[in-house]
Amino acid sequence: MKHGLVVVKTGEGKGKTTAALGVLFRAWGRDFRVRMFQFIKHSTARFGEHRAAKKLDIRIEAMGDGFTWLSKDTDRTTALAVAQWERCREAILEGGEDIIILDEFTYAMHYGWVPVEEVLDALRRRPEGMHVIITGRYAPEELVEFADLVTEMKLVKHPYQEQGIRAQPGLEY
Amino acid sequence: MKHGLVVVKTGEGKGKTTAALGVLFRAWGRDFRVRMFQFIKHSTARFGEHRAAKKLDIRIEAMGDGFTWLSKDTDRTTALAVAQWERCREAILEGGEDIIILDEFTYAMHYGWVPVEEVLDALRRRPEGMHVIITGRYAPEELVEFADLVTEMKLVKHPYQEQGIRAQPGLEY
Repeated sequence: MKHGLVVVKTGEGKGKTTAALGVLFRAWGRDFRVRMFQFIKHSTARFGEHRAAKKLDIRIEAMGDGFTWLSKDTDRTTALAVAQWERCREAILEGGEDIIILDEFTYAMHYGWVPVEEVLDALRRRPEGMHVIITGRYAPEELVEFADLVTEMKLVKHPYQEQGIRAQPGLEY
Repeated sequence: MKHGLVVVKTGEGKGKTTAALGVLFRAWGRDFRVRMFQFIKHSTARFGEHRAAKKLDIRIEAMGDGFTWLSKDTDRTTALAVAQWERCREAILEGGEDIIILDEFTYAMHYGWVPVEEVLDALRRRPEGMHVIITGRYAPEELVEFADLVTEMKLVKHPYQEQGIRAQPGLEY
């Protein structure tokens, strides 16, 4: 029996978006309908995941404003996040996907761009078998309460901090 | 400058293998040479990742004995693990890959089937730009010491324990 889960991947450690991409890979292997919305990465990003998704005709849709919590134009940032969330909500309620991934969406809630209650409302109204995965630091308490499966990625050791090594293509983006 | 990293994904939480699959997806998107060895999953497993890898001609090689730490024939289990590790070591030293993933390999060290020192020796002798990712619970202390990047997946909430829900295809396998 298919049971749709709300999955949250949070915490300071590496591997939240990466694990969501692993699900995308698995789901694609099973011919599931899967779609990913990104909230932080710039829409012009051509990371490994975007290249792979393009080759496989998987939909990864970015928000289009880069690392927006550093933005000085908060009105614009809020508007972009709200518009992206509207697209997500539509996809959730339409019910055409088996798995929907909201990548780095926790920030939109954490910074108050999108009200958590509105998100929970959409999640409650989604089709029964649909899985929704939400990634990012600072997952709001209400979301953790609501979710079925929550993993916290904990940083044990990080070479970029400790050794001054930059993020590596293929591995991290 | 390409800098090969040793990455460990450990801990009780979900998402270790899944994050490794995310790396595989990204790396494939960049036309990197990537190869995954699995230590626990049975060689006849046809999980989402195996289906996807087959479609994309990515090499995922399983060990062939299922969840072996429950095995009653420990000699056979040890022999299988050692043989699988030999294949990994060869691939690491050959240097033909950009990224090598040793999935659930920590168990082979934890249960004493493969000596940690032998693993560290091979990792030290790998080509400079090669990334090696090792997943699984109970990562040995010496490996954590040696690794460049270590993430612990921490279980916050788990529906299979709390609600009696079974693992979901596409999401988890």
